[in-house]
Amino acid sequence: MSGWVKIAGLGPGDEALVTPEVTAALADATDVVGYIPYVARVAEREGLTLHASDNRVEIDRSQHALQMASEGKRVVVVSSGDPGVFAMAAAVFEALENGPVAWRELQIDVLPGITAMLAASARAGAPMGHDFCTINLSDNLKPWSLIEKRLRLAAQADFSMAFYNPRSKSRPEGFVKTLEILREECEPDRLILFARAVSRADEAIRISTLAEATPEMADMQTVVIVGSSRTRMIERDGAPIVYTPRFTPDEDQ
Amino acid sequence: MSGWVKIAGLGPGDEALVTPEVTAALADATDVVGYIPYVARVAEREGLTLHASDNRVEIDRSQHALQMASEGKRVVVVSSGDPGVFAMAAAVFEALENGPVAWRELQIDVLPGITAMLAASARAGAPMGHDFCTINLSDNLKPWSLIEKRLRLAAQADFSMAFYNPRSKSRPEGFVKTLEILREECEPDRLILFARAVSRADEAIRISTLAEATPEMADMQTVVIVGSSRTRMIERDGAPIVYTPRFTPDEDQ
Repeated sequence: MSGWVKIAGLGPGDEALVTPEVTAALADATDVVGYIPYVARVAEREGLTLHASDNRVEIDRSQHALQMASEGKRVVVVSSGDPGVFAMAAAVFEALENGPVAWRELQIDVLPGITAMLAASARAGAPMGHDFCTINLSDNLKPWSLIEKRLRLAAQADFSMAFYNPRSKSRPEGFVKTLEILREECEPDRLILFARAVSRADEAIRISTLAEATPEMADMQTVVIVGSSRTRMIERDGAPIVYTPRFTPDEDQ
Repeated sequence: MSGWVKIAGLGPGDEALVTPEVTAALADATDVVGYIPYVARVAEREGLTLHASDNRVEIDRSQHALQMASEGKRVVVVSSGDPGVFAMAAAVFEALENGPVAWRELQIDVLPGITAMLAASARAGAPMGHDFCTINLSDNLKPWSLIEKRLRLAAQADFSMAFYNPRSKSRPEGFVKTLEILREECEPDRLILFARAVSRADEAIRISTLAEATPEMADMQTVVIVGSSRTRMIERDGAPIVYTPRFTPDEDQ
């Protein structure tokens, strides 16, 4: 089979954050598959067919990509950010595992991209400059009890935390509960960042504390970063800088 | 002041993984500062001065960069991977916070890059396709007791885990202890990946299980990824694919 699938990360939005590897894959593709707003970022050209589909059809889209590749097409599956972070890579492999055995002979590559939390972290300073964790707050695909357990253990581990999909229109109560759990586990002046549409024209970064944060500060376009207990803020004339120092003292000494 | 500092991520090694934003910053710089092997990746040109320094002088290097910028230079501080993940961004902000107040007027930007764990994850499939955490196993800058605490809580949270700096020549016992802790907390067939020199000529990816993993499988060039309890392997003729499904069932139902 001469077809292939490349699962590519387009980064958070700015074209200057798309890797040359991804640009080259798009230039060589016959077909591009993905969620409507991500496919819209790919320039049309002769010989390239764009297949945009709605949200929540990740497995259908993956099967379509694998099927086209098995017919000899060169298919790029586009994700925002990095395809391995709450994006299309896991969906394609799920479709592969449950699909025809012949699909396993296909060349399938994942092309990494700049994931939203690291673009957001860069914009704010270095809030994830030490150990951290990354949690998808959507309970579409996992029980809320698991999210709550992870939040409490992550707070007890004193990780910086990044949250994807913090607040959907249909289930806004999840992020309300998240803030309540964090207030039980962490001190009130813990820093929390709301990074919306990072690297895009409507980018907005807001720095708050757990005591002052409200659920409305987040939406589905927002990545939320909660600092560790050691995360600090440097005040200056422009936007303050938030960072987590590299050094943690031994509290027993 | 017309000078600036950009703290830039060069990605894991392959030039095709360097973002155009970083390439443009290097083209506009008067000075590049960094650890010797990372500065060696920057092409020499007229008008650009390269300042390579040894490991473990991150604060000296940061002060040097800030001082040059305050004198009007356009300085790029280079990191491998992403500057916000166990790299130079936190060091520069530490130097900024403790340095002359005038430095706070400087333009300082962090330019994100492809961090090693996401390049490694992409190469293996999507082992971090669900909630995960990222831990620096070096105890140079934090007590071992904190690393152990984080490892146990992360295992109890059933995160996939990525480890940076797993095993230094001078302190190889840390990774021995890490494997012991993980064997206490996780089942023996838990998948563990050793990704060495990802995207470089000597890249090597090794898939193992906690029962079969040995400390010698890691060195300081290796990123280690431990799957969650749900991480799976797809066998095929070529390299197997390791991925973590997006869906977690509710065990109470």
